[in-house]
Amino acid sequence: MSEPVWAYATPGIPDRLFERLPGIPLSKCEARLLLIGNLRLYPQSILWDIGAGTGTIPVEVGLLCPQSQVFAIERDEDVAKLIERNCQKFAVGNVEVIVGSAPECLEQLQATPDRICIEGGRSLGEILDYCWQRLAIPGRVTATTSSLEGLYAISESFAKLQARNVEVVQSAVNRLETRGNRQSFAAINPMFIISGEKLG
Amino acid sequence: MSEPVWAYATPGIPDRLFERLPGIPLSKCEARLLLIGNLRLYPQSILWDIGAGTGTIPVEVGLLCPQSQVFAIERDEDVAKLIERNCQKFAVGNVEVIVGSAPECLEQLQATPDRICIEGGRSLGEILDYCWQRLAIPGRVTATTSSLEGLYAISESFAKLQARNVEVVQSAVNRLETRGNRQSFAAINPMFIISGEKLG
Amino acid sequence: MSEPVWAYATPGIPDRLFERLPGIPLSKCEARLLLIGNLRLYPQSILWDIGAGTGTIPVEVGLLCPQSQVFAIERDEDVAKLIERNCQKFAVGNVEVIVGSAPECLEQLQATPDRICIEGGRSLGEILDYCWQRLAIPGRVTATTSSLEGLYAISESFAKLQARNVEVVQSAVNRLETRGNRQSFAAINPMFIISGEKLG
Amino acid sequence: MSEPVWAYATPGIPDRLFERLPGIPLSKCEARLLLIGNLRLYPQSILWDIGAGTGTIPVEVGLLCPQSQVFAIERDEDVAKLIERNCQKFAVGNVEVIVGSAPECLEQLQATPDRICIEGGRSLGEILDYCWQRLAIPGRVTATTSSLEGLYAISESFAKLQARNVEVVQSAVNRLETRGNRQSFAAINPMFIISGEKLG
Repeated sequence: MSEPVWAYATPGIPDRLFERLPGIPLSKCEARLLLIGNLRLYPQSILWDIGAGTGTIPVEVGLLCPQSQVFAIERDEDVAKLIERNCQKFAVGNVEVIVGSAPECLEQLQATPDRICIEGGRSLGEILDYCWQRLAIPGRVTATTSSLEGLYAISESFAKLQARNVEVVQSAVNRLETRGNRQSFAAINPMFIISGEKLG
Repeated sequence: MSEPVWAYATPGIPDRLFERLPGIPLSKCEARLLLIGNLRLYPQSILWDIGAGTGTIPVEVGLLCPQSQVFAIERDEDVAKLIERNCQKFAVGNVEVIVGSAPECLEQLQATPDRICIEGGRSLGEILDYCWQRLAIPGRVTATTSSLEGLYAISESFAKLQARNVEVVQSAVNRLETRGNRQSFAAINPMFIISGEKLG
Repeated sequence: MSEPVWAYATPGIPDRLFERLPGIPLSKCEARLLLIGNLRLYPQSILWDIGAGTGTIPVEVGLLCPQSQVFAIERDEDVAKLIERNCQKFAVGNVEVIVGSAPECLEQLQATPDRICIEGGRSLGEILDYCWQRLAIPGRVTATTSSLEGLYAISESFAKLQARNVEVVQSAVNRLETRGNRQSFAAINPMFIISGEKLG
Repeated sequence: MSEPVWAYATPGIPDRLFERLPGIPLSKCEARLLLIGNLRLYPQSILWDIGAGTGTIPVEVGLLCPQSQVFAIERDEDVAKLIERNCQKFAVGNVEVIVGSAPECLEQLQATPDRICIEGGRSLGEILDYCWQRLAIPGRVTATTSSLEGLYAISESFAKLQARNVEVVQSAVNRLETRGNRQSFAAINPMFIISGEKLG
């Protein structure tokens, strides 16, 4: 039997271990750790990951919570295949990739999610509205954005939906990177992570 | 049976859930997530946590890797008791608290650690030297510091010990905090996290 | 003749040189430098500084642009006196302190400002609306906030007023501070600085 | 008479206004403001700027302190010409560009500097040693670096030279940038700014 690509019990897979496609976003390792912490997954959570991109969250969650069920939603077919390839690479078996546009394509998902991660999407407000209806009680939504418009849309939606325990953190990590023969601190672009809870 | 304080499969326990003592440092949740990711623990790792403070790392690791063995080293007896109380609060059963000064007190530890976390200590260089000898091959050391002197001492020690795959990240997270009736972004003090590996 | 408190031609007066009152905000030196750069003052600008707090901006601008006219607006009488004391301390002669609530109290100001700095105020949107009417063409408004609500209010107002060349920067500076016998990096709380221009 | 490129009395010239050469570093506007604040120039200071790169500091200082004398030291001839072109573009008349390697080429400079800015150089420690000898009393050196080695070299030199009032700040600014039709916060790479004083 071959050795697993990531044999560790802790999240934080280095970015370079993921297969990538040009132009497709990838949550950088350090920001991803913060996002995973904000998801607050149960061992058997049902997670929707909307706008899954490279698939780093499905892979990390798949490894960390092997009894959970992860639905990765991605509108681009090539990107959906990329997520599948990354899941295969890391031997993650509990991720189902759904090709389609949120919120429409979410109709086909039967199981009630208790965790929803929104990493992207055309109409954040509309997606959040739909997700909120489908979310279990208690349930938790975590959304990420690096734009001001995204931050507004998510905050307003949470306010309108009367989300509880809303939390906002902004990651801002510097990494010492080697360039030529010198090492410089490089900043990882900041990401806002906004979480809200649906309570009874 | 009572409900666990932290039933989640993901790390990132909010700071306020830990019992605290005035003046005793606590790794803030966001920086802690970054530190845990850098530890790269195996499910059955043997971890030394030196300068364990409030005990947030022993608790998080204890929950995340219930088959691991964590040795929390702390020189102050009251702080050692605080770590024990926090382990009890979170029902963590695989942490042993050692009261003593590193590196001397590490002599009594028989098992060979494959992971060492250095969160503090009087003589970082001396502690790192001793730890490196005792570290398994392959093994990994992660140290944290918020001071320039600490950053120097650790970097120089890693260079002298010919540590491999040395990585430095600096956390810098902003949290939206409520003060009175307004919410402001507050910065969490930055922490340097330096990791190095001992390879065959 | 006594030596001036700040004899330098560059801005960036250390925080400790200002007289302070408990609870009254002070723009930290590093964030203030960024704010001053965003003001883009002419040597003979007429500046309104609304919510002037401790008076750091009036003092810095007064020194940097001795031919400018600065109107510092502050609703609290004790704080207004603090601004005056700080102006005296730094021998700044071109600052007029107006006690009153913006936007009402701005009616009494005759001269047309070409620069407006909004550091605080009860109703940011209303203040911005009024300021925009009074602002010269070309003119520039720079507002600061550390809150999400403030960021929204200012961004929306700028959009509504069709401000041009809108820029947003977020300061996040770490300072090496001495605590006891060790030096640690401490983060200065982040501040958003939003600028917009009124063009012909 | 043509209008000046930068008619403002405040520093913080946008990066895009400088002529650039590929691969030649430029202190980003936001970090530059912090650096200028740390220089604490007198109106008639004599400033050495070592490793002047694109020439942003000579230009800003030349404009801010027209009675000062700025010596910009740069080892590459093409880069030296770039500095000269930028000085011409901004109509700065008090900058002399010296082509040569520091510290050797500094011998030819007769006037005693009271301010020295070190933005780069092959051997930071050696440069600092030489500069310190030549520095007026009282005098101030400010050095910038984004690398850990640079930070060490400068800190150690300052300690050895018994520099007083040593200050270290780390800039970390996020800018809202427009990419396509959306605006995202982008981090400006962090820069360490270290200052020390030579007192009587």
